[in-house]
This record gives sequence, C-alpha cells and structure tokens, in this order.
Amino acid sequence: MSSVKDPRVITCKAAIAWGPGEPLVLEEVELDPPHPMEIRIKVVCTSLCRSDITQWESKAHAPLFPRIFGHEASGIVESTGEGVTEFMEGDHVLTLFTGECRTCKHCISGKSNMCQVLGLERKGLMHSDQKTRFSIRGKPIYHYCAVSSFSEYTVVHSGCAVKISSTAPLEKICLLSCGVAAGLGAAWKVADISEGSNVVIFGLGTVGLSIAQGAKVRGASRIIGVDINPEKQEKGKAFGITDFINPDDYNEPVSQVIKRITDGGADYSFECVGDTSMITTALQSCSDGWGLTVTLGVPKVKPEVTAHYGLLLSGRTLKGSLFGGWKPKSDLPSLVDMYLKKEIQIDQFITHNLQFEDINKAFDLMRQGKCLRCVIHMPQQYS
Amino acid sequence: MSSVKDPRVITCKAAIAWGPGEPLVLEEVELDPPHPMEIRIKVVCTSLCRSDITQWESKAHAPLFPRIFGHEASGIVESTGEGVTEFMEGDHVLTLFTGECRTCKHCISGKSNMCQVLGLERKGLMHSDQKTRFSIRGKPIYHYCAVSSFSEYTVVHSGCAVKISSTAPLEKICLLSCGVAAGLGAAWKVADISEGSNVVIFGLGTVGLSIAQGAKVRGASRIIGVDINPEKQEKGKAFGITDFINPDDYNEPVSQVIKRITDGGADYSFECVGDTSMITTALQSCSDGWGLTVTLGVPKVKPEVTAHYGLLLSGRTLKGSLFGGWKPKSDLPSLVDMYLKKEIQIDQFITHNLQFEDINKAFDLMRQGKCLRCVIHMPQQYS
Repeated sequence: MSSVKDPRVITCKAAIAWGPGEPLVLEEVELDPPHPMEIRIKVVCTSLCRSDITQWESKAHAPLFPRIFGHEASGIVESTGEGVTEFMEGDHVLTLFTGECRTCKHCISGKSNMCQVLGLERKGLMHSDQKTRFSIRGKPIYHYCAVSSFSEYTVVHSGCAVKISSTAPLEKICLLSCGVAAGLGAAWKVADISEGSNVVIFGLGTVGLSIAQGAKVRGASRIIGVDINPEKQEKGKAFGITDFINPDDYNEPVSQVIKRITDGGADYSFECVGDTSMITTALQSCSDGWGLTVTLGVPKVKPEVTAHYGLLLSGRTLKGSLFGGWKPKSDLPSLVDMYLKKEIQIDQFITHNLQFEDINKAFDLMRQGKCLRCVIHMPQQYS
Repeated sequence: MSSVKDPRVITCKAAIAWGPGEPLVLEEVELDPPHPMEIRIKVVCTSLCRSDITQWESKAHAPLFPRIFGHEASGIVESTGEGVTEFMEGDHVLTLFTGECRTCKHCISGKSNMCQVLGLERKGLMHSDQKTRFSIRGKPIYHYCAVSSFSEYTVVHSGCAVKISSTAPLEKICLLSCGVAAGLGAAWKVADISEGSNVVIFGLGTVGLSIAQGAKVRGASRIIGVDINPEKQEKGKAFGITDFINPDDYNEPVSQVIKRITDGGADYSFECVGDTSMITTALQSCSDGWGLTVTLGVPKVKPEVTAHYGLLLSGRTLKGSLFGGWKPKSDLPSLVDMYLKKEIQIDQFITHNLQFEDINKAFDLMRQGKCLRCVIHMPQQYS
C-alpha cells in the first residue's frame, strides 16, 4: 500500500535486492518526484525476464546493491516532470529498458536503436544526473536499466516509456516491453526471415519462442528448437516449433544434427540462452554462404564469444540484436496494435500470475525452468 | 622451356615448394592431360598473393609438400578434357581458386559463392578424384587451391576457370583472379558501402587497397587506412585512402583513435591483415547500432576470433567474405570489362614484374612488405 508523504516525495513498496542471489525483500522506499523530462509511473504489471536474474546473480557483471530490478512493465503515468509534454497523468505506458531520445545521431538514423542519450544504462543510475531516485532509510538504491519496475511506483525518463492504447490489457502487454518484442524483432527486423527458410533457435524461453512465432508468421518451413529442458518440446509446438532437439539425447554435437536435418545448415540461427559457447554452436549450425546467426542472450558467465575464422570466411554472418532492433518508442505501439488485432500472441507466454508479495516465487520458477513469463501484479491495479 | 613428351602427358617447369618456408625450386614436372571436365592451361602470368605465403609457411595449416603454389593467374587454354564444351584451345582464361559448378544448391542460390562441388580445396588435391595431376620423378605433387599456377602449365577443373575477353591484357588482369576482385567485392557486394559513409581498412595490401578503391567508387566520405608500414601512407592515397593511421604512432588503442575521428566509430571496417586479434579491433572500431565488420584475411597464426558479446549486442555485425562474395565464373567477366572501360584500376597494384626464374624474389618482396603485387611472367608468353 502506498502513501503519499508530501507532494514531491512518495513512499511505496519495492522489492529490494540487497545482495547477489539473495531473495528480494519488500520494503518501504522513498521515491523522488520526476525530475525535468521524467515521469513517475504507477506500475500495474511487471514480468520477470531472465536478464533480471542474470544481473541479480552478478556472476558476469559488477554487483550493484541494494538495487530494484525489473524492466519489463506496464503502468499508468502518475505525474510528470518539468518540460514533459508527451505524457499526461493517466496515460497508459510501457517502460523501455533502452530509451529513445529522438534527437541523437542513432535515433535520427533509420538503422539503429542504440540511443546515445538514453541507451542501456548499466551503472544503476538515472541517465540525466547519474543519481538514483529511490532511497531507503536515507541510503540510495540502484536502478536497473533505468526502469526498476519491481516497485509500486517508479520514475523513468520520458524517453524510457511509450504511450500505448488505453484499450490494451496492461497485464498482458507488459511482455512487449522486453521479451516478446525482442524475439519478434530479431526474427523480423534483424534477421528478416524469408519464406520457406530453415530456422534454429537455441533456448526456448520467451525470447526464443517469440522468434519461433515471428518465424512462423514469415512462413519459415522448418523451425527447430533446441533446449535441454524436455518440457519445452510440447510448449514449443504452440509457437510454431516444428522440430525439437534436446542435446542430451544425442551423442554427437548438436550442430552436426542440425546440419544433417537441414541438408547443410540452417538459414538462420538464434542464440537466446545467454551462453557465449552456444553462439559458437549457433554459427556452426548455420549454412555456409548465407547462414546468419543472431545473438540475443546476455551471457551468464563467460562474456567472450569465440569462433573459428573459417566459419565467417565461408560466408556466415554474426549479428547482435538488442530489443530486436526495434526503435522502442517509435515501434512498440504498432506491436500493441498487432496484439489487439490478434496478429501476434502474447497470452500463451504467461504461465504464472503472481501477486507482488510473491515475487521471489517468480525467481524460483524461472531458475528452475518452470515458467515462461510470470506476470507480477501490483496492488491496487487500475486505481 | 616446356617439351611435350607424348600426346597425353607433358613435362614443363614448375616452382616446387619442398617444405614449409623453403625457397621454391624450379624443376621439370610431369603434368597429366586434363581429365573429363578439366582443362589444361598454359599459364601466361601469375601474381603472388599473401595466402600463398601463409600456406607455404604452414604456421596455422597442415603442411602439404611437395606442392605447387599460385592461385591468381591468367592463361590460355592448351587442351580440353572429355565433356568440356565451354572452352576451346586458345581461349583466354582466369583461374578460379574457388570454383562454380553452376548446379549445386549454392551455385543456384542467388546468395552464395560457396560452390559445394568446386569450392575452396584445402587438401591439395583435385576435386573430382582427390588425386594430383602433377608429379616429379614419380612422386605426386600437391596442388594449391586446385589451381597451382606457379607452373608453365596447369590442369584445372573447367569450373575453376573463366573465359574472358581476348582483348584484356593477361599480364594485368591476372590480379582479378583473386586480390583485386576480393577487395572490390568486399566493398560492393558484401558490405554494400553507402555514399557518405566512414570506412576503415586494416591492412593496406592489394586486398585492402582494392576495398579503398571500391569505397571511393561508392562515394565513401572518409576512407581510413591502418597499417604498421609507413610506406603505405603515400601508396594509399592513389587508391582513395583519406586518413592513414600507423598504430605505432599512438599510445592509445587504434580503435579509440578511430572512434574519435569518426565520432563514434566507422560504418564499415575491414580486416585484411590475416590476424584474428585484428578482427576484434575492427569490431571495436565500428559504430554501435549499424557497424559492419568484414573479415577477409586468412589468419597466419591463431585461427580463433574472439570478441566481447557486448560488441555484437550493441548492434554490430561480423561477416566473412571469401572472394568478395563474387560468383567467380558468373561475375568475373564483368570486372574485366570494367577494367577495359577504365572504371576500375589494376595497373597501380603491380609494383613488380618478374620472370618465372625469379619467383623467390616475389616471396621476399611480399614478406618484407615491399610490394603490392609482383606479376610473374611465364616464358614464351602468348606462344
């Protein structure tokens, strides 16, 4: 339950991560008002993404604690800072873990979503002043991706949120704030999958299955899913997976299996595990001459990608995809509309709905590979 | 001087490599007649390419000796094997170190030059029967790239040669058989350089300078050349290099220098050194969001490419280029025509003309970085 202490600072409940891998603790925090060009959002729903866990575990990244994670969320604008004309109180929004300032070289270009002003924030601070908006008992709390949606309220830069149709169900479309959009964009914008092609996807989480969905829409003839979790075989079918490979079932390298069943290698391969050695395997699984490997995962341990030069010289391409190449503010509203027109599915990714106080269950479920997306519902929805 | 021993086997002089790094020895060899679908070529000119040296040194590749190197050559068809209808005695040809069968999945596709039948041959044998056509004192001599042009005559598969205009000067256009074409294709077909872009090229040999030439034709606004050989600064200007960087002149990483002078990184970077760590540098020198790194070099030592995943995730692409993506038989004649129309330059790459008996001088000059292309003229040209 939130209570407004004064017109400028509010207190609300947030899930604090106090240390790497430690269960989150719901505590009262203080949250600044939005600074100039920022907005304060009442979070309605936030889903848990694998990168929240990767950062929280801090195995391959510098630990920053205490911290409020969460970056895939929907909400309603509570108040706006000075200079904000794009948003009004009551607007429905999706948060953007990578923003779009619309004025920098990259935003102006037609070919990049790597905003130079509001791009992926890795230091746990707000872009504008390198400070935090949250504090607890006087101690600053780090943000995550400048979103920090594991809180009843949060403050984000107005370039890190996008207004969406008020008819869209916030408890579903929060998934477009990261995972589902990232997968669809990887398939459509980054790889530009062509009809009749062979696609292989390593890692059948929400991102991987969104790629499968995107590949199916494009008319790929074969969509091979690779996962060591046998439960993903059945789950994958609903999203268009035509062939399932569990590497544990084979005595030969998975790339060899894929080359055999695709007559030389896949046209497109996608790494959605977050394991750099899997990127190598994805490259090896691609066809000579035109094979394209797209890497989306955030590595959990070893950050170096390694590949024999011959894999490239023989005509393969290795490409990274952040948020599926979408310009977040420009492109997300049309994805919401596609959902409303039933052209893409989101609901099937939601395997669990949890109340905010049960947020640690979401962490457990994801670490055990038992969920796709857990949607965490904040108290007093739509108030 | 060649002498025909009998109608089927000929003897001729060839430059034999007897061991890794050992000077070549000109000796009489026996050369089979062309087998079915093969042609025997009287080599007119052959130029030395860096990959001949890399393979001859055998630091990163299995040594195969004795061997006849050479893969960038022009010649005249001397005789044709059974079933050959495409060539006649007297036709002017360029040899193709990677062939084109025109019937396999890759040849039929519009997107690959990795012929599955006549692609890059690495075992030193002919594609059709995995045997050699050369022998010396009864001992077989390995081929190189199924071309072996360091010989007065050679036998190649008819898919590994292309007929070209008889008006083209064979002593010049032999360079289109590998280096110059590889660079132009990397710029035009693989990278598809756009007008006004920033380009950085690592390694200003013939391939690198051909990329510069291609970038200039495309209207690149800045073409940065990187080389540790200071003599390349002046040489580069003739091919369009606008900025020269000698890494030895800086106390900071070259990628940082490039990022500074290009305001964030190059649009395209090309690795033509044959050093996998330079591929990493090339990736680092590219812009977030759209930077494309093309790798062309054949590594001299470490074959593994390593890169931090973040370089990819932030929107870079890493792509390999073999022979500039050209389909060799289909595309080379039009490059020859461009040369004849003076739309591309070749002559300026030829820094030395040598007689066959002086072939080891070409090796010395290239190892010392004192040449671009040495054209080796065979005896009895145009006989």
